[in-house]
Amino acid sequence: MIHFLLAALIPVVSDQAADEIVKAGQFLDKAGLCPATAGNLSVRLSSEYAAISISGKHKGELTSDDVLVVDFQGKPQNTTKKPSAETLLHTVIYSLFEDVGAVLHHHTLNGTVLSRLMANEKSFVTEGYEIHKAFRGHPTHESRVEIPIFENSQDYPALAAEVAAYLQEHPETLGFFLRGHGLYTWGRDMREAKIRVETFEYLFESEIKMRMLRGL
Amino acid sequence: MIHFLLAALIPVVSDQAADEIVKAGQFLDKAGLCPATAGNLSVRLSSEYAAISISGKHKGELTSDDVLVVDFQGKPQNTTKKPSAETLLHTVIYSLFEDVGAVLHHHTLNGTVLSRLMANEKSFVTEGYEIHKAFRGHPTHESRVEIPIFENSQDYPALAAEVAAYLQEHPETLGFFLRGHGLYTWGRDMREAKIRVETFEYLFESEIKMRMLRGL
Amino acid sequence: MIHFLLAALIPVVSDQAADEIVKAGQFLDKAGLCPATAGNLSVRLSSEYAAISISGKHKGELTSDDVLVVDFQGKPQNTTKKPSAETLLHTVIYSLFEDVGAVLHHHTLNGTVLSRLMANEKSFVTEGYEIHKAFRGHPTHESRVEIPIFENSQDYPALAAEVAAYLQEHPETLGFFLRGHGLYTWGRDMREAKIRVETFEYLFESEIKMRMLRGL
Amino acid sequence: MIHFLLAALIPVVSDQAADEIVKAGQFLDKAGLCPATAGNLSVRLSSEYAAISISGKHKGELTSDDVLVVDFQGKPQNTTKKPSAETLLHTVIYSLFEDVGAVLHHHTLNGTVLSRLMANEKSFVTEGYEIHKAFRGHPTHESRVEIPIFENSQDYPALAAEVAAYLQEHPETLGFFLRGHGLYTWGRDMREAKIRVETFEYLFESEIKMRMLRGL
Repeated sequence: MIHFLLAALIPVVSDQAADEIVKAGQFLDKAGLCPATAGNLSVRLSSEYAAISISGKHKGELTSDDVLVVDFQGKPQNTTKKPSAETLLHTVIYSLFEDVGAVLHHHTLNGTVLSRLMANEKSFVTEGYEIHKAFRGHPTHESRVEIPIFENSQDYPALAAEVAAYLQEHPETLGFFLRGHGLYTWGRDMREAKIRVETFEYLFESEIKMRMLRGL
Repeated sequence: MIHFLLAALIPVVSDQAADEIVKAGQFLDKAGLCPATAGNLSVRLSSEYAAISISGKHKGELTSDDVLVVDFQGKPQNTTKKPSAETLLHTVIYSLFEDVGAVLHHHTLNGTVLSRLMANEKSFVTEGYEIHKAFRGHPTHESRVEIPIFENSQDYPALAAEVAAYLQEHPETLGFFLRGHGLYTWGRDMREAKIRVETFEYLFESEIKMRMLRGL
Repeated sequence: MIHFLLAALIPVVSDQAADEIVKAGQFLDKAGLCPATAGNLSVRLSSEYAAISISGKHKGELTSDDVLVVDFQGKPQNTTKKPSAETLLHTVIYSLFEDVGAVLHHHTLNGTVLSRLMANEKSFVTEGYEIHKAFRGHPTHESRVEIPIFENSQDYPALAAEVAAYLQEHPETLGFFLRGHGLYTWGRDMREAKIRVETFEYLFESEIKMRMLRGL
Repeated sequence: MIHFLLAALIPVVSDQAADEIVKAGQFLDKAGLCPATAGNLSVRLSSEYAAISISGKHKGELTSDDVLVVDFQGKPQNTTKKPSAETLLHTVIYSLFEDVGAVLHHHTLNGTVLSRLMANEKSFVTEGYEIHKAFRGHPTHESRVEIPIFENSQDYPALAAEVAAYLQEHPETLGFFLRGHGLYTWGRDMREAKIRVETFEYLFESEIKMRMLRGL
């Protein structure tokens, strides 16, 4: 009896969560967004736990063994596997927004170039694109999407606190940049998170080409 | 007997139409032309009806269940599925041109950038490309292809009327832009519509590179 | 007996030639070099005949039925199928150079942009690339590769004569441009022709990027 | 008995080494880094021998028969197959660094363009990229990666000596350019060498785009 009770209390990676993370890794790799060992991917398991990809593996080659459970303080559960140092940036999003079911972080080359070039800007803004409508709650192209840019840092607890403070004030945020590093975006479920990845990448590449043609 | 008569009157998606739309979705996705939930694809069923892709799905993941019938006023037939808000832009083309068998709309990034940059232009023109010969009725590179650019709008009935008026005056048109949105093109059949997609994309990418090299 | 004699005199597409052409079409399509119905591909069958791809088909979708025999005057043999209008540009190369076994023509976007931008130049030259060594007879990067640019024309017999005159004077030529149209290249066999396609494309893309960075 | 002793003394390509080289060739080809017959790939077999790809083959089409053994003086062992003329550039790395298990050389187009444009620079430097962390021993983006650029040469013994002298002084080096030619990089094993290929390519493409946007 105790055996069963304990089992119920130990959070485990569901088959679905592992499968979604493995496939999201292949999706990001195919899109060229996770070179080398870049990126980390997670899925909400409950109001306290998330499944997240292991540190240091190529995201195109993940297996279900490369997914572990963390609590929302970023602590790995019942495992000796090491989660990404950036785990707190995932869990802060789950903590703040009950309706977020998946978080994807990748190293978009276009976004990295844009955020480095706009060295003094605190955000990146797009306006007037029909593709904005792929973002839930944006029924028209006559809209404005603002992506905050945080300075990159290896002090992840401090960075997570900074991000949390911003997101609390700006709950409409759809994603954020770490300068010279990459993008975080999320969604109600993995499907929506992937749609946002494609939408953002389209916007970043469009804006790069616009700037190449008309100047910075 | 009545059963059979009624069945004959209810328009249904033919297996061939569904198959062509599913495959066209994969074709556009592979070419990177339908990010997120962008694009919509249709095939003529008769002089009154067309099959069209459902709203809100990723075009690389369509199945035959994601195809519905609409009449040329854009009204879905015998279904609770929701067609794209842009359905009227498809049906206006079938209404005007009896020989059009398929219409493809996608979010060409190159075309979106060009139509945004040429903010004051009402059309985009290419000249002197051998690839023009892939357009039926263009036997030589010494030809001129004009693509009208309509201002993007969420008022699709008004936009469809504007497009219809233009196409009636310019029945030689091979495709049109919605500014900052994407391209519509079509053909006698899906094969020709896909050939026009590839031909236009080649022209857009060439013109982007030309402008990057010699200036706008 | 007469039956057999006649059969021996009628040139047919060998299985190997058809297979090489079908696979070369897929190779060029995958590299994005034959959009729409662009390109034509051929293999030498003998001192008098070549196998060549049919006109008007997508090169990624060729089957062995889409390959026909032409003599070196460009006349189709024992078929009602229509060869490309550019057939003479293939056969002139086989006529001039006994050691050419395969000819590939495609619509390189990079080359089309370069040849249009260099509107007053009669040739395109690359120097100092290690990849030059992939061209037989170029043992060092300290070499110069000159690609003549012919003005595009729909008068193929005249164009073929112009090309032939140039190639007789410059038998070391590895390929030529038709301005705003595409590239012709060839090799002892299909393997070498494909290697030249990749080598030229690498050079064209490098030169486009060089010019984007340092100006025309 | 003598038979067994002799066999033990004759170095052979292990199945694992051949498999790693064949797969690395496909990996580089898919990434567009080895056009035509470019590139050469090797794996350490022992403290005296390495397995290396044969000369002149397309790297996407290697089979285990295309892998041979060389000693660290670049001499092929028990084979009539010809190794790459650049073999010494591989073996000099194995000789200098006991912990290197694999060396990859490819013709990065972005790197070739950068090294040609920076005609007077002796090295290429990147700073501040999060992706630096994919390089072992770089725990932060606040780091500097310097890639020396050697002048290209067909005198490979002289070039190998020049490279060796540099690497002895700069054992922290992660890769080097041959100007207008390509990149050499390596790792403890093939996995690490491939991660460095992706990391470097991301840096080169980022720097190309940065320069396109803000000038050289």
